[in-house]
Amino acid sequence: MPKKVVIIGAGNVAFHLTEAMLQNTVNVVQIFNRTLDNARKLAGKYNISFTDKISELERANVYIICTSDKAISEISCHIPFEDCLVVHTSGSMPISALKGKYRKGGFYPFQTFSKKRALKYDKIPFFIETENREDELTLFTLARRISGEVYKTDYEKRLQIHMSGVWVNNFTNHLYHIAHEICEKHNISFDNLKPLIKESADKIIEGISPFEAQTGPAKRNDKHVVEKHLSLLEPDSRLYQIYSLITDSITKTYHDKL
Amino acid sequence: MPKKVVIIGAGNVAFHLTEAMLQNTVNVVQIFNRTLDNARKLAGKYNISFTDKISELERANVYIICTSDKAISEISCHIPFEDCLVVHTSGSMPISALKGKYRKGGFYPFQTFSKKRALKYDKIPFFIETENREDELTLFTLARRISGEVYKTDYEKRLQIHMSGVWVNNFTNHLYHIAHEICEKHNISFDNLKPLIKESADKIIEGISPFEAQTGPAKRNDKHVVEKHLSLLEPDSRLYQIYSLITDSITKTYHDKL
Repeated sequence: MPKKVVIIGAGNVAFHLTEAMLQNTVNVVQIFNRTLDNARKLAGKYNISFTDKISELERANVYIICTSDKAISEISCHIPFEDCLVVHTSGSMPISALKGKYRKGGFYPFQTFSKKRALKYDKIPFFIETENREDELTLFTLARRISGEVYKTDYEKRLQIHMSGVWVNNFTNHLYHIAHEICEKHNISFDNLKPLIKESADKIIEGISPFEAQTGPAKRNDKHVVEKHLSLLEPDSRLYQIYSLITDSITKTYHDKL
Repeated sequence: MPKKVVIIGAGNVAFHLTEAMLQNTVNVVQIFNRTLDNARKLAGKYNISFTDKISELERANVYIICTSDKAISEISCHIPFEDCLVVHTSGSMPISALKGKYRKGGFYPFQTFSKKRALKYDKIPFFIETENREDELTLFTLARRISGEVYKTDYEKRLQIHMSGVWVNNFTNHLYHIAHEICEKHNISFDNLKPLIKESADKIIEGISPFEAQTGPAKRNDKHVVEKHLSLLEPDSRLYQIYSLITDSITKTYHDKL
């Protein structure tokens, strides 16, 4: 286990990683953030040190940069120490985005984080990447304190994992949003959709493959119902296009010869 | 409460409705199905009567047609009784699809059903439609035996509800399928995606609006990451098109002026 860890950033990922680490007796010694107020909010919860000045950055064994992708290079080049491991938590940046003479790594927690939501940390997959075996062991031990799911990865695979997350979270959430809009427009309570949203996710989580779980007019190639639904949408609108394209994709998945 | 109910069909909806009704002491007296074997399988579980012959159809107060949309008209015209209520369970057919001299109605349970999956019936929204107030009361009482969520609807609204279900279930499931394909191709365990799938649904179920819950590169208008992801997909492939279109839709939702 690294003796001392510093968290850089005070956003959603920093918030949850700090909590997860402190709950599991990882020695987080400081929060660094460019906006002092946010650093104070996060550090204050746990009564640990915080700063917005690089000159006050404490010496630690591991620095975890939890900022946005864009800020990683900029902040990383200001870390003045060499005998340490600096990692970022991004799914889409190579570890070469870290600019400094220290050792480098990736520490990617694969989940969607918002400060408002409590999370079960022990199920979150962590994907780690390092330059050498010793650091791999360090990150592995660190992540295992939090979660039972820790895996080695390289940049190529991490990108694929990140993109998979976009499909099952970002895009899925946008479909929920579209349904929410339809409900609002037609005076339907969105709460009525929740048992279906839950069952759709539960099916997959409990082990039915998405291929097997598919139901509905597109799968049955039921053009009659598809036409009815399309007639409810404004022709050539965003929703019309998405409905058509996904329907087409489902139909092709099950009726290969079409 | 109707004294006697007959279920017509032996598919997923019939399977679950029969179970839900019998669990709640609704008097289901018979299963009718064109394929006797499937009727036997379902009726046999509960030791109730079954048949594949219209001439053997028992007299009942309510007949619930749980067949596919296409079969509704055909089967409904063979019901030889007039002093009864005949309903279908379709989200996308008008009650005029029922062809007979009996009273007509809609009894739409808004959930995705598969025989393999146990369901909590008491949370399933039921949408009912009838020709008169007395039948409305009958169907309301019947549905309330099963679920706490029972609503009147008309055909127009039922179609919108059905389409909303396509967005949050059918389309969402297809995105899970696409992610599953990506995982298989790149030797990533699909199990790694499950905590994220769960959290994405849970957020919404527990009351965060999809608009507020949205995260990711498209929302941030992070073209750099979007380009990286697109570079992982075959240009102009089905996946490339869907990725582009949904990304575009998310970006427009949050950056209206683009």
